[in-house]
Amino acid sequence: MPTLDFRSDTVTKPTPTMRRAMAEAEVGDDVYGEDPTVNRLEALAAEMLGFETGLYMPSGTMTNQVALMVHLRRGQEVIAPQGAHIYEYEPGSLAVLAGGTIRLVEAPYGAPDPSAVRAAIHHSIHQAPTGLIELENTHNSAGGTVVGLEAQAAIQAVAREANLPIHLDGARLFNAATALGVEPRAVAQGFDTVSICLSKGLGAPVGSVLLMPKALRAEAHRYRKMLGGGMRQAGVLAAAGIVALTEGPQALARDHKMARALAEGLLRMRLEVDLQAVQTNMVYVGVPSPANFTQRLGELGVLANPLGNRVRFVTHRDLPDDAVSLALERIQQALQIA
Amino acid sequence: MPTLDFRSDTVTKPTPTMRRAMAEAEVGDDVYGEDPTVNRLEALAAEMLGFETGLYMPSGTMTNQVALMVHLRRGQEVIAPQGAHIYEYEPGSLAVLAGGTIRLVEAPYGAPDPSAVRAAIHHSIHQAPTGLIELENTHNSAGGTVVGLEAQAAIQAVAREANLPIHLDGARLFNAATALGVEPRAVAQGFDTVSICLSKGLGAPVGSVLLMPKALRAEAHRYRKMLGGGMRQAGVLAAAGIVALTEGPQALARDHKMARALAEGLLRMRLEVDLQAVQTNMVYVGVPSPANFTQRLGELGVLANPLGNRVRFVTHRDLPDDAVSLALERIQQALQIA
Amino acid sequence: MPTLDFRSDTVTKPTPTMRRAMAEAEVGDDVYGEDPTVNRLEALAAEMLGFETGLYMPSGTMTNQVALMVHLRRGQEVIAPQGAHIYEYEPGSLAVLAGGTIRLVEAPYGAPDPSAVRAAIHHSIHQAPTGLIELENTHNSAGGTVVGLEAQAAIQAVAREANLPIHLDGARLFNAATALGVEPRAVAQGFDTVSICLSKGLGAPVGSVLLMPKALRAEAHRYRKMLGGGMRQAGVLAAAGIVALTEGPQALARDHKMARALAEGLLRMRLEVDLQAVQTNMVYVGVPSPANFTQRLGELGVLANPLGNRVRFVTHRDLPDDAVSLALERIQQALQIA
Amino acid sequence: MPTLDFRSDTVTKPTPTMRRAMAEAEVGDDVYGEDPTVNRLEALAAEMLGFETGLYMPSGTMTNQVALMVHLRRGQEVIAPQGAHIYEYEPGSLAVLAGGTIRLVEAPYGAPDPSAVRAAIHHSIHQAPTGLIELENTHNSAGGTVVGLEAQAAIQAVAREANLPIHLDGARLFNAATALGVEPRAVAQGFDTVSICLSKGLGAPVGSVLLMPKALRAEAHRYRKMLGGGMRQAGVLAAAGIVALTEGPQALARDHKMARALAEGLLRMRLEVDLQAVQTNMVYVGVPSPANFTQRLGELGVLANPLGNRVRFVTHRDLPDDAVSLALERIQQALQIA
Repeated sequence: MPTLDFRSDTVTKPTPTMRRAMAEAEVGDDVYGEDPTVNRLEALAAEMLGFETGLYMPSGTMTNQVALMVHLRRGQEVIAPQGAHIYEYEPGSLAVLAGGTIRLVEAPYGAPDPSAVRAAIHHSIHQAPTGLIELENTHNSAGGTVVGLEAQAAIQAVAREANLPIHLDGARLFNAATALGVEPRAVAQGFDTVSICLSKGLGAPVGSVLLMPKALRAEAHRYRKMLGGGMRQAGVLAAAGIVALTEGPQALARDHKMARALAEGLLRMRLEVDLQAVQTNMVYVGVPSPANFTQRLGELGVLANPLGNRVRFVTHRDLPDDAVSLALERIQQALQIA
Repeated sequence: MPTLDFRSDTVTKPTPTMRRAMAEAEVGDDVYGEDPTVNRLEALAAEMLGFETGLYMPSGTMTNQVALMVHLRRGQEVIAPQGAHIYEYEPGSLAVLAGGTIRLVEAPYGAPDPSAVRAAIHHSIHQAPTGLIELENTHNSAGGTVVGLEAQAAIQAVAREANLPIHLDGARLFNAATALGVEPRAVAQGFDTVSICLSKGLGAPVGSVLLMPKALRAEAHRYRKMLGGGMRQAGVLAAAGIVALTEGPQALARDHKMARALAEGLLRMRLEVDLQAVQTNMVYVGVPSPANFTQRLGELGVLANPLGNRVRFVTHRDLPDDAVSLALERIQQALQIA
Repeated sequence: MPTLDFRSDTVTKPTPTMRRAMAEAEVGDDVYGEDPTVNRLEALAAEMLGFETGLYMPSGTMTNQVALMVHLRRGQEVIAPQGAHIYEYEPGSLAVLAGGTIRLVEAPYGAPDPSAVRAAIHHSIHQAPTGLIELENTHNSAGGTVVGLEAQAAIQAVAREANLPIHLDGARLFNAATALGVEPRAVAQGFDTVSICLSKGLGAPVGSVLLMPKALRAEAHRYRKMLGGGMRQAGVLAAAGIVALTEGPQALARDHKMARALAEGLLRMRLEVDLQAVQTNMVYVGVPSPANFTQRLGELGVLANPLGNRVRFVTHRDLPDDAVSLALERIQQALQIA
Repeated sequence: MPTLDFRSDTVTKPTPTMRRAMAEAEVGDDVYGEDPTVNRLEALAAEMLGFETGLYMPSGTMTNQVALMVHLRRGQEVIAPQGAHIYEYEPGSLAVLAGGTIRLVEAPYGAPDPSAVRAAIHHSIHQAPTGLIELENTHNSAGGTVVGLEAQAAIQAVAREANLPIHLDGARLFNAATALGVEPRAVAQGFDTVSICLSKGLGAPVGSVLLMPKALRAEAHRYRKMLGGGMRQAGVLAAAGIVALTEGPQALARDHKMARALAEGLLRMRLEVDLQAVQTNMVYVGVPSPANFTQRLGELGVLANPLGNRVRFVTHRDLPDDAVSLALERIQQALQIA
């Protein structure tokens, strides 16, 4: 009985093509800016996302945090959608590194109302003045939901009007583009900075890229160094990243289909799933005791993550074609045991 | 037409007794711990609140922040009631000084449900682990509401059970004690640290005290110094603080009566007031355009603060006996103009 | 036998005129910018020092630190003279509050060589790029020595040339002006920001002012608030500050004369004193065991501070006219006991 | 004419064995602690250095900084040898991440006098109290010099006596062990934490390990996450790290011999070299204009780094056997041109 790992798309392992690329990568010392493969990856990402320049880092947390450090002065506030990754999973970083604080606005399916964002902006020195607006697309904790291009544009307009920068946590931007049926650069458009992850659905073992205008690069570079993100012959990783960027996106449609099939199967079992939220590669299921449920499931060979009062299933390229039907069977079993 | 200043109880000016005490204060260099009047004030506050020791500082923000620095390691999370002063009015400080982040829990009338607090505690390193629980009594943005002693005890029990420290922002602790009809030390009981303000309803011109066990004093002292809160002949201020502690509390009952009368008058005008929240010296009124309304009122000689979509009136010892009836007349006028 | 306190000029107590001014001060809520006495003090200080605006704070540490926060981005470096107060006595503040680091340059008698300052400037992102140059006049740990106006101008030129701001820690700027025989504004000239203390030789019980151009005031104000330096009816203190600024400077010449007399007396006893460094109100004496020596002295009624391998004597307005001759006698006694 | 790159041992590229290991590495999601190759690397490093546990990170800056964060409370001071990497090349990190400051002690050939370290320890709250002692072995800016085991032990004794932790920046610990002719664990002995780099002379493309007792691991892990150092399938890198640890150390003796030969050659040209400092794989040469000199050299195909008023040559495994004789010829040429 093979284990089916639905915990995250971060568990994807490098493909043979990636491994070959890594083994053959031309490298140099990237701290001196001399790794040709890193340079190629950064240029490719910038070109694909419509930015002047990109900066390679070891994680999505780092690309987000470097962006926050670049945009915020100490003691400023980021306005972000409820459940934002930078609040739920990087809050200590925001406080310690950027000295920043956060103001969450309601965001059904990840998209805050532009007027709610506008109302949250303030400049009072008695509070922490707003320094940045942030979006996340797809929005993980809302269900892997897609923020539409018009919704993004409306919030970008609020930012421009208030003369505030706006950052996109695009850890799963390629999933959003796939779901919307647009080019990745369409999703990235209108943001001052965008972070993307190569190590989630795209399958690279490690790495993220921060996209930005050239004017911000020196400061971003300084902060990457400060956080210990300067790597030497990072080209060995970047080589896999290039494969991920080139071959990864087209594989995402399958992930989305699998998630849809899983959601529908779970609904048939009368489990609590918001089908409207199943827009990309995630399915959140409400169950009475998430920790117990995932443990039982684990014993049956299906791994998933309990998050608050729900269980999250994530589909990805390393799951076999029959993963969903097998998983549904085992979930059925787990429910009967309970 | 005398101006009636309902903006805050912080506008109270030193009484003649305070001014005399300041003029005659015996002083020394408090940075060397040699100001006898500061030492007396700290001892008095500690005794009144039932703590081993107190540390005098120039503001309530500083006493709260020093407490946060003492309790939190970098990148930890404080659980606090929605609308907490440390989030709404000191958020940059929390992030920059303590490197801390905040998790707000719903808190009707300022009192969070103990089970909600328990559920918010977590130790995951993927998030910012909980490092402190915080309460605020009275709770300013909930309406100057009082958190009952049983409610406090229940949350203190949650903290103890999780082996977490618990801090009370007692900027208006004496208002809570007055409303509850208990000694101040009853309100302070069960907390690891408590901050109190001398410059709000108690009337001192400047100053707050952080109460704590002796074991925390050296670290608190170090942080006060770090923030620039070490003052030299602070006895001139502390002298007024002693008067405030000694004579201030008994004056608060009048403030509370005035607030009640004001709230009832506003309700008679069919303005939106939650009478259940009017428990001490504050009245929050919902009006369509708070900024415009307070401006019109200001032109009629009544000062109040617009806060979000409401207007806050605070009663205090410097308001004359007829302040409420006069204010109600002018508010009536302001409504007619509109 | 009256105790003679040579530990610091910070031990000076408010004069009767100051106490009267405090008792009669017109006050308001300075957090709202409405304390007329604070406003008068800030205007007076700005005028005396030739700056557009001043901001009142509870300590010299806070005025320096707010300046550092205004000038530095996170992770930048301050170039400062060896022994600078911001390094020796405020280093945790620099790191925690501004996220700044320091590069000390040799500074005989407090004045670094301009070429050494120039050589210390760098922009490498592998290091912490220079963000500020700082001077201290008079320079406490160099002996209360005066940095001449030409020396200041030469270093200011280096700063301008490198497009770097330059801050003066002028905690004892009035001592420098007195020693140089120039107006205080001459010492403050050419700096972007200057901090002055009212509570050292000038005699006010508490308080410092940060002088700056108007363009920096909002940010400085925000940081003061963040550190907990916003005080309410601070006018009671500011009133004493106004007296200190008005009457304090002319009293400093006496302090300097006393220091000179003390130094010469100590030299006659063959104690190790660098007479060339005795330029204002301080005398540093090298003795074999500073802690023991000051303890013995203390028992004879003469207080002084051991600092490293030296003992520091500071003269000030609260010392009686015969303080130096009395102190010399007792020091002689102390030496004989030893 | 092949370019000879003496800029740093960080320029070493992965060997064929490393590339093969990377291509074949068994991987998992290290954020979940499930990457078997990372786990093997950490265990191997811990075993070789005599520690309970190791934590893999993308850079030496990060391993040092995580150690500093673990050991220091905000606003504490590290005592370190003059020229320490954590001061010269990571100072912004120390301030921003750990809120720490540094006190440098003189350290001829990298080894401070134990009594100087003892004298630098202090606990005054007016200053930043000492929180950690740090050493660097080999000491880069002192010339790649080796701190002897007795010298280390003497300073460790000072730390123990003062109840302070002690950290070793062992970025080039294996060079020290090689020069001393001892096992790596002998150099690591007696420290609370040690950081080692796999990507310098040992040749791995990326990566460092922080060695520590198990009791510190959870906190270190939290900080790694906070800095964005959590990587997913990091096993692809760790595989190279295992090769570096296994095969790298024995190659270092050749590097040291080359450095010695280079130094002697430079001395024969009457260039300023302190031969006593040439103990491992570095040669520092004093020249009048380091930047010009290295530029001319670069044009002749020899790369070296200007550092202050010297030029640094570093030998490493990627240099061919005739590198030194070729380099000396070209240096001779460069000098004649000048």
